Amino acid sequence: MKISKLVGERYKETPNGAQLKSHILLLRAGYIKQVSTGIFSMLPPAQRVSQKIQSIIRDEMNKIGGQEVLFPVVMPRELWEMSGRYQSIQDELLRFKDRNGHDMLLGMTHEEAAVHMVMNTVKSHDELPCMIYQIQTKYRDEARPRGGLIRVREFLMKDAYSFHTSQEDLDAYYKKVYDAYVRIYRRIGLKNFISVKSDSGIMGGKVADEFMLVTDSGEDRLVLCDKCGYKANMEVASGRKSPNEKEEEKPLEEVFTGNAKTIDELCHYLHITPDKTVKAVCYETEDARPVIAFLRGDYEINEKKLAKLCKSEIKVADTDKFDLVAGNIGLLNLTVQEDALVFYDTSIKGLENFVTGANKADFHVKNVCADRDLEEVTFDDIALVKEGDCCPVCGEKLTLTRGIEIGNIFQLGTKYTKTMGMKVSMPDGGAMEPIMGCYGIGIGRALASIIEEKGDSKGIVWPMTVAPWQVHFCPLRLDDENVSAVADELYRKMQEAGIEVLFDDRVVSAGVKLTDSELMGVPIRVVISPKTMANGTAEVTMRETGETNFIPLQNLLSELKAIIEDEIEEINKNI
Amino acid sequence: MKISKLVGERYKETPNGAQLKSHILLLRAGYIKQVSTGIFSMLPPAQRVSQKIQSIIRDEMNKIGGQEVLFPVVMPRELWEMSGRYQSIQDELLRFKDRNGHDMLLGMTHEEAAVHMVMNTVKSHDELPCMIYQIQTKYRDEARPRGGLIRVREFLMKDAYSFHTSQEDLDAYYKKVYDAYVRIYRRIGLKNFISVKSDSGIMGGKVADEFMLVTDSGEDRLVLCDKCGYKANMEVASGRKSPNEKEEEKPLEEVFTGNAKTIDELCHYLHITPDKTVKAVCYETEDARPVIAFLRGDYEINEKKLAKLCKSEIKVADTDKFDLVAGNIGLLNLTVQEDALVFYDTSIKGLENFVTGANKADFHVKNVCADRDLEEVTFDDIALVKEGDCCPVCGEKLTLTRGIEIGNIFQLGTKYTKTMGMKVSMPDGGAMEPIMGCYGIGIGRALASIIEEKGDSKGIVWPMTVAPWQVHFCPLRLDDENVSAVADELYRKMQEAGIEVLFDDRVVSAGVKLTDSELMGVPIRVVISPKTMANGTAEVTMRETGETNFIPLQNLLSELKAIIEDEIEEINKNI
Repeated sequence: MKISKLVGERYKETPNGAQLKSHILLLRAGYIKQVSTGIFSMLPPAQRVSQKIQSIIRDEMNKIGGQEVLFPVVMPRELWEMSGRYQSIQDELLRFKDRNGHDMLLGMTHEEAAVHMVMNTVKSHDELPCMIYQIQTKYRDEARPRGGLIRVREFLMKDAYSFHTSQEDLDAYYKKVYDAYVRIYRRIGLKNFISVKSDSGIMGGKVADEFMLVTDSGEDRLVLCDKCGYKANMEVASGRKSPNEKEEEKPLEEVFTGNAKTIDELCHYLHITPDKTVKAVCYETEDARPVIAFLRGDYEINEKKLAKLCKSEIKVADTDKFDLVAGNIGLLNLTVQEDALVFYDTSIKGLENFVTGANKADFHVKNVCADRDLEEVTFDDIALVKEGDCCPVCGEKLTLTRGIEIGNIFQLGTKYTKTMGMKVSMPDGGAMEPIMGCYGIGIGRALASIIEEKGDSKGIVWPMTVAPWQVHFCPLRLDDENVSAVADELYRKMQEAGIEVLFDDRVVSAGVKLTDSELMGVPIRVVISPKTMANGTAEVTMRETGETNFIPLQNLLSELKAIIEDEIEEINKNI
Repeated sequence: MKISKLVGERYKETPNGAQLKSHILLLRAGYIKQVSTGIFSMLPPAQRVSQKIQSIIRDEMNKIGGQEVLFPVVMPRELWEMSGRYQSIQDELLRFKDRNGHDMLLGMTHEEAAVHMVMNTVKSHDELPCMIYQIQTKYRDEARPRGGLIRVREFLMKDAYSFHTSQEDLDAYYKKVYDAYVRIYRRIGLKNFISVKSDSGIMGGKVADEFMLVTDSGEDRLVLCDKCGYKANMEVASGRKSPNEKEEEKPLEEVFTGNAKTIDELCHYLHITPDKTVKAVCYETEDARPVIAFLRGDYEINEKKLAKLCKSEIKVADTDKFDLVAGNIGLLNLTVQEDALVFYDTSIKGLENFVTGANKADFHVKNVCADRDLEEVTFDDIALVKEGDCCPVCGEKLTLTRGIEIGNIFQLGTKYTKTMGMKVSMPDGGAMEPIMGCYGIGIGRALASIIEEKGDSKGIVWPMTVAPWQVHFCPLRLDDENVSAVADELYRKMQEAGIEVLFDDRVVSAGVKLTDSELMGVPIRVVISPKTMANGTAEVTMRETGETNFIPLQNLLSELKAIIEDEIEEINKNI
């Protein structure tokens, strides 16, 4: 490819509104162009990278017996009504009427379509396990797209669905997919990724793992134990709370606290620390039941866990609505509606001499002791893990970090096969609804994640396995006839040798060529100039390390091929 | 691939509602499954064929300098308002509001997105010509999807867009694309295809060619001249009308015709033939202007041509609305609204002694003579070509046939670059809006067309270049340990030799295996059985010709590879 004909331009300036490294570099290096909020066109270099990522994913999916298919983007309402998702998913699902007034939708995932495909075509237990997958455009009506290709509305995704006759079989296959995912990330050149336990969200099901690129720019919060390897998304993480020092129990005492409503105000007023307080947070369920959750003042509520306990989506409630005294809600003498749900976080367990609301305006109660004053209370884990909490497995101090989700795998159970009525015949003559797993990777996000991990101050750094080109050929002084002739010949020879080469055929300054090359991130840069040619060499520089060697022109092709092979081998050696 | 694990089932019965050969066979052979009207899932064998077709298309697009990109499926209203298509395209364009209330649409073609991509990134004349293309899912809200993959609502399409600084450059590139299309169709195994001049429809622009698979099952009507090679879609075709015999002019005469309103009734009543009558058809334009078109009674109106003359979409009008006497409208003494548009087809030119309506109830006028009675009338070509008409180029009798559109190429002009304000700098210091071409092929329709052309009474017949597998391996009597052992080894060896093989590993009757094999259409069938094994051979049958040979097992792999190579060579030899 000649750069003079390559569609796309390179920019020095950081584009308006772009903050994430990958977003900035993809725009600056001419890989993507925004068409609407969270909607991008992929220019030729991005499409090349995307296709290499897709090839690697296909290869790994085929290796574990996957069969590639293609589901429709547009589906009829009826299909999603069978699974119940037409009703249960809110604004994120894009619905519309076709010209005949029929309700249609744009698929965000394809569990329904997958069951539809195997239903009545896979009939017997001995056809299972089977796995079908597709690579296709999906649309999610994200409320807040951000970060270039990291959180978009439209994206290319590999989604896979497997069917099993037993939980053991699903467990075994789930492990195979897990391993395939690890191989995929390694093969596309990622190193700094982990998997964490996660919430299965709108998919339904129980077991779920997310693959995360660990990076400060991530929007997911992660909880890790360096000692035993415990890893979880904050949404599902548990931490042992650091207990307060043992104290002598003091008598209950009601104190005037006036306008001190928040934990900060209360601590300031009473000269105590937040860990000596218990606060309440109020929500309501979908059917308007009040939810009151108590937790130690220095913790924050984990809404996902609370919602799970409530078996309902929840939203922050107006305390007035439930006749509660905002700012003075307390554990003792709490009067609530009959249908109210009240929960107590494990951070309160055994807590002594703490302050909580008195359930009347302007007053709190001091010296509450959980063991003494809370009768028949069940404690639940409903607080977010915080710095200082200990590993629920080994007790070591937990580390909090951030990550970008780069893939997820779920055990779905029989939610879809049951609701849609898919059965296979069993050896005993009976029939069963197959147990499903589903497995996703966003192609664009994987592409951006590589830049997040490897990009540097000068630009993108592509691993050889997914690079849009292997060699960026930058002859300097193309106005010189000798350089021009040798450049044309080398370009031709590189192509004939099967080297993927981007040829900077412009007559521009060395500065422009080398800066563009660093920005675009092709792994090997080859420079020739009147100077190198005088020595009969080419200057070969590795984008990642900056290492430069002068290689005799007569050895150039074989050396380049050797470097390319070495690089690919290096990436693949741990698979 | 083992057929026992292949997702999909084969059926003996013709599926309900399927009429077209490809539709029936794709359903029966387990290639596709309908999800909604005109919306299908592609099962693994179809996906394999689709990907081979895509590879061939990519290869040919890259050969003519195409750069692969990816545009969004979902686009914002603003982009399509710039080109004017948001307003001009009716129900076929699917519109919706995103969750923030923003007007969005599903792209049916991507001219706007293509201009958006090159705008401000391709700036200078020396970057042109350039061509970008994508392969992507498109959605068109078809009113009447039909014929399986032939006319669908959702489909995978290769669409390409080129940009040029002169008409000559576009002409030259257009020819290159034309040739690439011919190579693509040949490489996917089609023989019976032609190109015809066509209407550019909603794309805008002037020159357009459609590639057509010639087949009786096609919904497009084609007009061909076997002598000079004139070929056109009925929509744009012209034919010289066969003139009536010369007669002596007779005097005008008003005759009572009572309830004879249609041409048939009139001819029956007056004992004349339709070519001795002139009829009127009535339409109205978008802004409700009456349109009255006169043509000889044995011709039908060409609505596309009439609409072009009207410079508006047209719809059939209620004659009452315009104070016309339905069934008695005539050429003479016609009183119409001031803004009415009246057209006369060339079939009336020179016509003598014909009958036309008298513009009053129950009466017609006899012996009208065009040369004598029609003053200052302009004749336009607004009738559909019919059997017996002659070639507009060479005068030979035309042939009418039918076809399926399998691709189209358009010269777009500057419609999109002008409206969207895209310019490139020119050598003289000025700037110009590039001239565009656009080029489409539907992948699914290409796939179905191969079946339309080659499928037979037993099933699909795939050309080797696009076959889902090259060999369908059918060992009979797999309950026999010897057969089973040899079959497993041959399957392994074929895979190792790089042969794409579908292994029928089921213990079912020979009839089931052979029928399934014929239905699925894999080019080479290899059968082993206790009988062939006794002779140390395998039975090798070509799906297309039915030719069978017994090949010694020790030569089987090399023979199969030779057959595969020969078949591919045979298909590609004319490229």
